[in-house]
Amino acid sequence: MGSTAIDAAIDTLPLDRRAASDPELMARAGNIRLVCFDVDGTLTDGRLTLDADGRETKSFHVHDGQGIVLLRQCGIHVAFITARRSEVAERRARELGVRCHIGVKDKLACVRELCAELGIGLDAVCFMGDDLPDLPAMRAVGLSAAPGNAHALTAAAAELRTAAKAGKGAARELCDLLLAAQGRIDDPLPPTARGEVS
Amino acid sequence: MGSTAIDAAIDTLPLDRRAASDPELMARAGNIRLVCFDVDGTLTDGRLTLDADGRETKSFHVHDGQGIVLLRQCGIHVAFITARRSEVAERRARELGVRCHIGVKDKLACVRELCAELGIGLDAVCFMGDDLPDLPAMRAVGLSAAPGNAHALTAAAAELRTAAKAGKGAARELCDLLLAAQGRIDDPLPPTARGEVS
Amino acid sequence: MGSTAIDAAIDTLPLDRRAASDPELMARAGNIRLVCFDVDGTLTDGRLTLDADGRETKSFHVHDGQGIVLLRQCGIHVAFITARRSEVAERRARELGVRCHIGVKDKLACVRELCAELGIGLDAVCFMGDDLPDLPAMRAVGLSAAPGNAHALTAAAAELRTAAKAGKGAARELCDLLLAAQGRIDDPLPPTARGEVS
Amino acid sequence: MGSTAIDAAIDTLPLDRRAASDPELMARAGNIRLVCFDVDGTLTDGRLTLDADGRETKSFHVHDGQGIVLLRQCGIHVAFITARRSEVAERRARELGVRCHIGVKDKLACVRELCAELGIGLDAVCFMGDDLPDLPAMRAVGLSAAPGNAHALTAAAAELRTAAKAGKGAARELCDLLLAAQGRIDDPLPPTARGEVS
Repeated sequence: MGSTAIDAAIDTLPLDRRAASDPELMARAGNIRLVCFDVDGTLTDGRLTLDADGRETKSFHVHDGQGIVLLRQCGIHVAFITARRSEVAERRARELGVRCHIGVKDKLACVRELCAELGIGLDAVCFMGDDLPDLPAMRAVGLSAAPGNAHALTAAAAELRTAAKAGKGAARELCDLLLAAQGRIDDPLPPTARGEVS
Repeated sequence: MGSTAIDAAIDTLPLDRRAASDPELMARAGNIRLVCFDVDGTLTDGRLTLDADGRETKSFHVHDGQGIVLLRQCGIHVAFITARRSEVAERRARELGVRCHIGVKDKLACVRELCAELGIGLDAVCFMGDDLPDLPAMRAVGLSAAPGNAHALTAAAAELRTAAKAGKGAARELCDLLLAAQGRIDDPLPPTARGEVS
Repeated sequence: MGSTAIDAAIDTLPLDRRAASDPELMARAGNIRLVCFDVDGTLTDGRLTLDADGRETKSFHVHDGQGIVLLRQCGIHVAFITARRSEVAERRARELGVRCHIGVKDKLACVRELCAELGIGLDAVCFMGDDLPDLPAMRAVGLSAAPGNAHALTAAAAELRTAAKAGKGAARELCDLLLAAQGRIDDPLPPTARGEVS
Repeated sequence: MGSTAIDAAIDTLPLDRRAASDPELMARAGNIRLVCFDVDGTLTDGRLTLDADGRETKSFHVHDGQGIVLLRQCGIHVAFITARRSEVAERRARELGVRCHIGVKDKLACVRELCAELGIGLDAVCFMGDDLPDLPAMRAVGLSAAPGNAHALTAAAAELRTAAKAGKGAARELCDLLLAAQGRIDDPLPPTARGEVS
């Protein structure tokens, strides 16, 4: 569609207005080829749910999953990167067909390895995180984002802060902004409309 | 009861005021014979809760269940339609005595089949959904609705947007509006008062 | 303590101000000997959480449990009454040492039986509920209450509506009001301070 | 970093402003060597989640865990103290490498024992709790804190009340204030940046 339709879509979406109206930031967003998400507090609402036997459950949001499906349909790579050794995160990543790195002690090193493998630079990476361990990666990549309720010191360091909270659409909001920046926000969506699981 | 009592009930309920005061929309709502609900993000709050073994749990709201029971008592058909292969959705549907279609790639095609089976037209169908895969069905039916926190592009396409959020009474709010439109909002409720499980 | 201390406690608590300042209502609250709670949407936030095998989990709030412990310490009887056949509700009731009636089709009949057994009248009963199946009991007892987010038609029928939402302290708020009405809001609390499980 | 940088960090954080600007309170906060947390309603959002077999799950917040990791890196002791016999609390404590006392009938006695063992006075202890059973310990220690949504009578007794709610960052907010008071809020964080599990 034309830029008018894209502008209308952008106006409808609850995006970070400051970011969406910054041409330089949107230009960088238009070049992103890999989006890395921290898991707890970014793709989930931060709750670590345990039972007495140590079984863990996590809650991911269907809107975030839909956004990740849309990124992949546009050829953008997606990876989950978490310090926690969480098989649940791996399972959700498998459902969505994306990479998942668990038990990661140095997230920036993990991002660098992904870049090398994909043959892209750090400037083509977007990292979304919510707390101190995410900062080194967030500071090194082309675009950094944080959920609306990220820890204050991390939120202050992010270039983009979503209106939505973690685990309740924050990741989707970032996906929508990236899609908008790449002119793909209203693609005909045939696979989605045919019910690809999100 | 008389229209005054119905009006009073309508005034008490937290309905979409714009929709409830639109005679043309309420007339269409009065003719609905089948209500189709998407599941994740419509009947649930959008959280996909998983454990390491892939066991999934979903949370449905008791108010929504009560609304669905009331629709059925008025002879209105109800169906759950979801792209996700979710046995939990099937179980909840079974509790409420309604149809459930899982793993649905084309929701509009599913709706058309239900119409053929019930001998009704698409204009007698209401579809409530919250994200892009719901749009084709929402655009084709007689009345489209979205939870208050539906994805923005889907919410913008819905004729009716509830004050309540998904999984927290959004479906009930739609049920109440349909019951009001059909003059059944304050039926004596004998089966409910006798404790039908909702 | 003197009435001044009680007044100060009442001022601190987030009670229904209209109710707390109504001498006639507080006098009735002072005579309550049995408090009956609906479960889903009253003691829980209304979420029915299921897995694919039909295993159900429910979330009760620790503040509500503490309030129920305090009621019992003051010699007030407590019962859970639910239409749903929920073993989880029975388990929580057992933890708190209160009665639990599940699969109840006629809640008012259940309340009448409890009254007969305890040798009290309906005027000594308080019933807290959140939806249509609770209305007959709520209309018949001495004091009716609803959580802040009860269904609108039920909330409108309740004499007392809490500021807190269901499953997040609504029951505790009612307990505190009853304790205040009975002059027991700041009892020395020795069993509680010794850590009775709530 | 210098005090200007610390002041900037303090300004960024969503701390209890009244407490953070009280030199006497911050001086006491600077001397804390042991932080004790109640569990339900303090480290969790107060929900007691049960299934029919009595299996309990609890949800802890990743931000709170990160704060506790930071306290430990600064040599501050941390203990969980709960009246409930909860193996889930023990498991979370084990993940974070902190002490956990369950089934505690007298929390103040438990705190005194910890003080004797560590060779510190009650004035070097901070206790965070949310309800009546926490009051005796809160009144005896050097600094008392409560989550933003603590029960009103307990909140009124706390010297420090967080903006964040229990189970959603309240404990982290307290940790950040203690770290700020001890001039450690922006330590280089090497272990954290290397991905210590929180």
